[in-house]
Amino acid sequence: MNKDFLGDEETLDDLQLKGIHVIQKKDAFRFGVDAVLLANFPKIKKGAKVIDLCSGTGIIPFIIAGKTEAVNITGIEIQEDMVDMAQRSVKLNKLGDRIEFINRDLKDIEFLKGLPKVDIVTVNPPYKLKNSGIINPNDKNAIARHEICCTLEDVIKGVKAVLKDNGRMYMIHRPDRLADIICTMRKHKIEPKLIKMIHPNIKKAPTMVLIEGQNHGGTFLKWEAPLYIYNLDGSYTNELNDIYGR
Amino acid sequence: MNKDFLGDEETLDDLQLKGIHVIQKKDAFRFGVDAVLLANFPKIKKGAKVIDLCSGTGIIPFIIAGKTEAVNITGIEIQEDMVDMAQRSVKLNKLGDRIEFINRDLKDIEFLKGLPKVDIVTVNPPYKLKNSGIINPNDKNAIARHEICCTLEDVIKGVKAVLKDNGRMYMIHRPDRLADIICTMRKHKIEPKLIKMIHPNIKKAPTMVLIEGQNHGGTFLKWEAPLYIYNLDGSYTNELNDIYGR
Repeated sequence: MNKDFLGDEETLDDLQLKGIHVIQKKDAFRFGVDAVLLANFPKIKKGAKVIDLCSGTGIIPFIIAGKTEAVNITGIEIQEDMVDMAQRSVKLNKLGDRIEFINRDLKDIEFLKGLPKVDIVTVNPPYKLKNSGIINPNDKNAIARHEICCTLEDVIKGVKAVLKDNGRMYMIHRPDRLADIICTMRKHKIEPKLIKMIHPNIKKAPTMVLIEGQNHGGTFLKWEAPLYIYNLDGSYTNELNDIYGR
Repeated sequence: MNKDFLGDEETLDDLQLKGIHVIQKKDAFRFGVDAVLLANFPKIKKGAKVIDLCSGTGIIPFIIAGKTEAVNITGIEIQEDMVDMAQRSVKLNKLGDRIEFINRDLKDIEFLKGLPKVDIVTVNPPYKLKNSGIINPNDKNAIARHEICCTLEDVIKGVKAVLKDNGRMYMIHRPDRLADIICTMRKHKIEPKLIKMIHPNIKKAPTMVLIEGQNHGGTFLKWEAPLYIYNLDGSYTNELNDIYGR
């Protein structure tokens, strides 16, 4: 890998997936298990068109490119320096024929409506309400964690703007927001179709929720078996290792 | 126990809780693990007033009377013969100072509004949409299982009619209806506050959901660790045995 692609304070991280590497800032918001779980949640058919909102440094588009035969994957991100890193990662991985990144605010609904409609939308949005908890003094992290630039409803409106009729959205979020998520999706006629809860281990309450919605879908909500991150001895579970390809 | 209390085709079932027995029909809808789980879910303070909707033969009021210091527990049930059995169970257990049953349709909102407001409402409603699945040819079972006499929205309206401001409702239902449940509760300003999922075992998707709502409650949805019914070897889990007092 060519280190010339890297700016100051940047690292090149190996996804351990078909040799794909992504550029991230050392001290800024870095992808976590939530992005990896989300990228592995959708069933994506050959030839599918995908948009990833709140795309950050592009981890989800890169995993989807590595794991599926989606032809056209677009990441949309409001923070210019994140998009710059993502675009350099595209060149580095020679994935310019399948992945592109756009530096845009997802609240620019008219812009989103002008894009070709897609089969699949993924989104790993900020989890926390703007006024909840301690706001990180580092702005970039605050934007990724708190609803500063976009609320949950902005996110769902953005999803709605780009999704084909009957197309599917996939989101990871906090279980404490599930009532907000379900009601906001329904308000915009995106029906919740599938939920998978993520628990630290079998004895703990869930800490993340994966949810699938369908644009104008029929009413039936299926549940998958939970995913547990750790065994009770503290080692990773087989299911988590499978997702990471370990 | 006095067998004279029993009609034809009736049985007397020991709750294994302070000697309480309930009368049930041999072949009709009998209480299951769902009623027991629901009755054990609320935190009920000394002196609390409780209403149980869709009360059937009264299993939930009897468990609550046995396990808590609630002073006034009223079961409301549309089916006359169920109420007749429940009232005979009250006499049999000498609980007439704490439990009463009323034979009434919960859709009679004016009647419900005329009752003294309560701290706690429990409800184990019919789970299935009217037009879903095979309708049981035995009417009584169909009424208990399908939304024939009341829809989910009728149930929530009934809860709303009897609940104090800030009072709490507790319901058990199917996870596939959770989007309907959450949106209907919010529509009637009963905020979902706590969810506990019930799984057959750690490898299976949830098959039941326990949900707490608060009348005019603030927005924050907490999740408990799941309850698993069986261990992987097919034996009951310790948590389930604890609930049954085994």
